[in-house]
Amino acid sequence: MERCYSVLEIIKEDEMAVRFFEFFFEKAVAYFSTVVKIETQSKFAKFRLEGGAYKELIDNLDKQCRHAHDTLMSDLHIFNRYIVKNYNNELIEKNLAGGIFPHPDAIHDKVAVADWVGNVLNGIYVNRKR
Amino acid sequence: MERCYSVLEIIKEDEMAVRFFEFFFEKAVAYFSTVVKIETQSKFAKFRLEGGAYKELIDNLDKQCRHAHDTLMSDLHIFNRYIVKNYNNELIEKNLAGGIFPHPDAIHDKVAVADWVGNVLNGIYVNRKR
Repeated sequence: MERCYSVLEIIKEDEMAVRFFEFFFEKAVAYFSTVVKIETQSKFAKFRLEGGAYKELIDNLDKQCRHAHDTLMSDLHIFNRYIVKNYNNELIEKNLAGGIFPHPDAIHDKVAVADWVGNVLNGIYVNRKR
Repeated sequence: MERCYSVLEIIKEDEMAVRFFEFFFEKAVAYFSTVVKIETQSKFAKFRLEGGAYKELIDNLDKQCRHAHDTLMSDLHIFNRYIVKNYNNELIEKNLAGGIFPHPDAIHDKVAVADWVGNVLNGIYVNRKR
């Protein structure tokens, strides 16, 4: 979470980059929500749906989940390429070499990115204004 | 998270209760998303909006957030009263006395409920199918 806010501080004068970063958080929340939905519905819906309807629901949720994950990965890569191209010196100065993702070598690893997104969102939630 | 799934096991033949519990998770995810939205947008939007527009955005998000929180609290109480009324013996047998919320005395404490919701959702996400 802190890393994200440090990146924001670097790009804050760049309105398109800031807005893109906001979009990225929207995609991250959408992915998180889809994961929770598939995890809970796969446990709940089997008590109320017949076999065929249950399978169809889970297949649809799986598809939504993959789509949300792919979108998230793609937007992360676009954003990261942009900031590394345009703000590399500032990133290095602030110990953010490689960009937004704390393990730049693993930025194409879907599970690593999903784990990181979960941590970031949970950090934001836990530190919310109360 | 485990407590939620244990409650589900107890009520699984009660289709309205199961469905209500699903709705509850939808409300929980909606609240989580709204919190993340207000936390990120309050940091991001100030770089792209004028003072008045920024204040209006934050006021609207605050209102959404309060509304989502109130809905969540109300649905939690409805669900919990129902299961305690109808499944009290089963709950006690499974060490779930008081119902779904692990600190029954604090079920009207908005911050405690929000913290618990965050933990439950994060637990579901972290233990997702990969």
